[in-house]
Amino acid sequence: MPAPCLELTHRQEFSAAHRLHDPALSDEENRRLYGPCNNPRGHGHNYEYEVTVRGPVPRSGMILDLNVLTVIMREEIFAHVDHKHLDHDVPFLQGRISTAENLCIAFWERLAPRLAGYDGCALHRIRVYETRGSFVDYYGPDA
Amino acid sequence: MPAPCLELTHRQEFSAAHRLHDPALSDEENRRLYGPCNNPRGHGHNYEYEVTVRGPVPRSGMILDLNVLTVIMREEIFAHVDHKHLDHDVPFLQGRISTAENLCIAFWERLAPRLAGYDGCALHRIRVYETRGSFVDYYGPDA
Amino acid sequence: MPAPCLELTHRQEFSAAHRLHDPALSDEENRRLYGPCNNPRGHGHNYEYEVTVRGPVPRSGMILDLNVLTVIMREEIFAHVDHKHLDHDVPFLQGRISTAENLCIAFWERLAPRLAGYDGCALHRIRVYETRGSFVDYYGPDA
Amino acid sequence: MPAPCLELTHRQEFSAAHRLHDPALSDEENRRLYGPCNNPRGHGHNYEYEVTVRGPVPRSGMILDLNVLTVIMREEIFAHVDHKHLDHDVPFLQGRISTAENLCIAFWERLAPRLAGYDGCALHRIRVYETRGSFVDYYGPDA
Amino acid sequence: MPAPCLELTHRQEFSAAHRLHDPALSDEENRRLYGPCNNPRGHGHNYEYEVTVRGPVPRSGMILDLNVLTVIMREEIFAHVDHKHLDHDVPFLQGRISTAENLCIAFWERLAPRLAGYDGCALHRIRVYETRGSFVDYYGPDA
Amino acid sequence: MPAPCLELTHRQEFSAAHRLHDPALSDEENRRLYGPCNNPRGHGHNYEYEVTVRGPVPRSGMILDLNVLTVIMREEIFAHVDHKHLDHDVPFLQGRISTAENLCIAFWERLAPRLAGYDGCALHRIRVYETRGSFVDYYGPDA
Repeated sequence: MPAPCLELTHRQEFSAAHRLHDPALSDEENRRLYGPCNNPRGHGHNYEYEVTVRGPVPRSGMILDLNVLTVIMREEIFAHVDHKHLDHDVPFLQGRISTAENLCIAFWERLAPRLAGYDGCALHRIRVYETRGSFVDYYGPDA
Repeated sequence: MPAPCLELTHRQEFSAAHRLHDPALSDEENRRLYGPCNNPRGHGHNYEYEVTVRGPVPRSGMILDLNVLTVIMREEIFAHVDHKHLDHDVPFLQGRISTAENLCIAFWERLAPRLAGYDGCALHRIRVYETRGSFVDYYGPDA
Repeated sequence: MPAPCLELTHRQEFSAAHRLHDPALSDEENRRLYGPCNNPRGHGHNYEYEVTVRGPVPRSGMILDLNVLTVIMREEIFAHVDHKHLDHDVPFLQGRISTAENLCIAFWERLAPRLAGYDGCALHRIRVYETRGSFVDYYGPDA
Repeated sequence: MPAPCLELTHRQEFSAAHRLHDPALSDEENRRLYGPCNNPRGHGHNYEYEVTVRGPVPRSGMILDLNVLTVIMREEIFAHVDHKHLDHDVPFLQGRISTAENLCIAFWERLAPRLAGYDGCALHRIRVYETRGSFVDYYGPDA
Repeated sequence: MPAPCLELTHRQEFSAAHRLHDPALSDEENRRLYGPCNNPRGHGHNYEYEVTVRGPVPRSGMILDLNVLTVIMREEIFAHVDHKHLDHDVPFLQGRISTAENLCIAFWERLAPRLAGYDGCALHRIRVYETRGSFVDYYGPDA
Repeated sequence: MPAPCLELTHRQEFSAAHRLHDPALSDEENRRLYGPCNNPRGHGHNYEYEVTVRGPVPRSGMILDLNVLTVIMREEIFAHVDHKHLDHDVPFLQGRISTAENLCIAFWERLAPRLAGYDGCALHRIRVYETRGSFVDYYGPDA
């Protein structure tokens, strides 16, 4: 019988500024499209993001060591975005409009290769909360 | 390459009274079936409900403008149920027993057509919390 | 040296319907005064209430046994209000308009004498949450 | 038309001690593998666990009576684990390393047969939170 | 017997960017004093702030109509800070370093006179959460 | 005019095992006094504890640098109690029955002298949550 598959999720919080603005549009079009999120000086959030990995449970009882997952998330995401302006200070977000949808995709691209190195385990979902009452889920490019 | 698909969720809260009671059953049968939820004068909750839409991410970076989703939820659901008695004051709930399951189905019926008007985006899930520790999920009639 | 004084708080949740309505006023005056909370068929909440006792710490390390406090709260409050209509089903609320302020006062009156029976310990505060974002505190008639 | 399928989730909390330790490994290997979770005297958590059942909605409007689900969870899980040491006091956890993954599997084995007795309804998911920011999901041996 | 005094609290959330920076200090001194909060492009938060009023309970059962408090908070605070950069976009914060402490004081100055117009009721406390785990309380200049 | 006084609070979480047991009492007396908390193998919690300091706001706008407070809490409390058995592994808790009341007092004794070294600032309150719904507050030996 194969080992049963489970999903392990860890959540971290970071505080960042951002502004929704498409440089290909006029100021007027940006205001119409993004409303108050287009405020020229920006605004900010206590973002929360969850990373879920899926895989079989080996003898250790752990799909993936939670401390390993925690460190990978800190190194790949938290260290680059906490107390930063997402549109100016984060190289891997350059050229993307900083919506929660695009944060999910960018985080996936950084985390999927790092997590692929752990036997049998794969990145399953990224969730980004912009506020307590609104969030985005991404299950990868093949979902 | 097609645009990646993501899911956007927004949550709202409303305060309402209700009573579980099936008019086709006797009072005794109702008491046995619904227990304290059958209290004749009703009881109530701070309900929370989440609406999830799923779709591809266009150039704007937004599956659906969160402000649009917020307004649709307010118009179609919140305005009709907040500070109301679900069994007496809400036309679209008439003839249904006001369990969280039936609220999910009724909310789906109102929201699915409104949300179908947005390119590539479709209603994916309705979640209704009756209390912090109990909730119901509905993925539509085809799930 | 006297034993140091501390405060112990326990929280419980109950689900109830209610309506704000003053029988001494006209319907029109009630609507103006209480707005949507005056809806004739009522509305409801998942109320949370906290009871704080204050007293010296004896050798046991407990101001008051948490299980004792839990049982007193269940007997004096929870059993009378959960899954009830506050304005019709609760004898000790009759003749009071069921605002969070008046719930605090009524809960104090029931709990203060019960808690006075425990050596050195006294009721210190009642807090009632109507929603997650609004609550009332009462420190007793002498505060 | 068949009755629509929905999912009902209930959450409970329990407080327990545990220690991650594999008796087949040396003390040094255990320390390396489980880090601070291998502390010889153990540590503990306020665990939260969610049970989700999935099924069609009958005339009653309830997939499964929430009170029935609550009682089953109390009898099968809560009564055995609350205020206990998971590695010493819980017969159905003996021989398992008490990770959140293994708790999910053990809870599934106890709950799936009990819940199979309710018409059309089946256990769908077990979620175990070890802390507010980390949890495991299990969808059963066939998922 | 005088009417008993109670305290009513309402909480609102806003999303804003800010930067801790004292123009009287050198860049190096600012970095040392404020650390990552001095990031030149700023960062941001989902701030939560609570306003507590204290007063006697009149016949209506309400220290102050919660809807009145909500509107005053929206007009005096929320409308000026939500989706804004606190250091550039908010006239009443100019010349203040935007710590949670200084936000409390500035909010007090705007709210105290507005709330003084309600009979017997006075502003009692301002609380500002920068994150879920850190907040500041202010009881006014005379406390 | 003197600088206004405010209160700054920071919260941290730790996971620990413990057992309520008074060695001066018989096993039977311990069972009666502490109930399930006397379980011989112990149980555990995700404790949360808050530390509040009170003081005037200087030119920096910060009563106390939040990073300083965070580090002091980690060094004096968190590093000694996280992933530990409170009754066996923590020297400064030896000889105390590990109720939330006694944790508050022990934490106060460690933190008050450390925090006294910051100009004008003093420890004001320790709060310890054993579960989400029960906590203890301590305002020091003179309160």
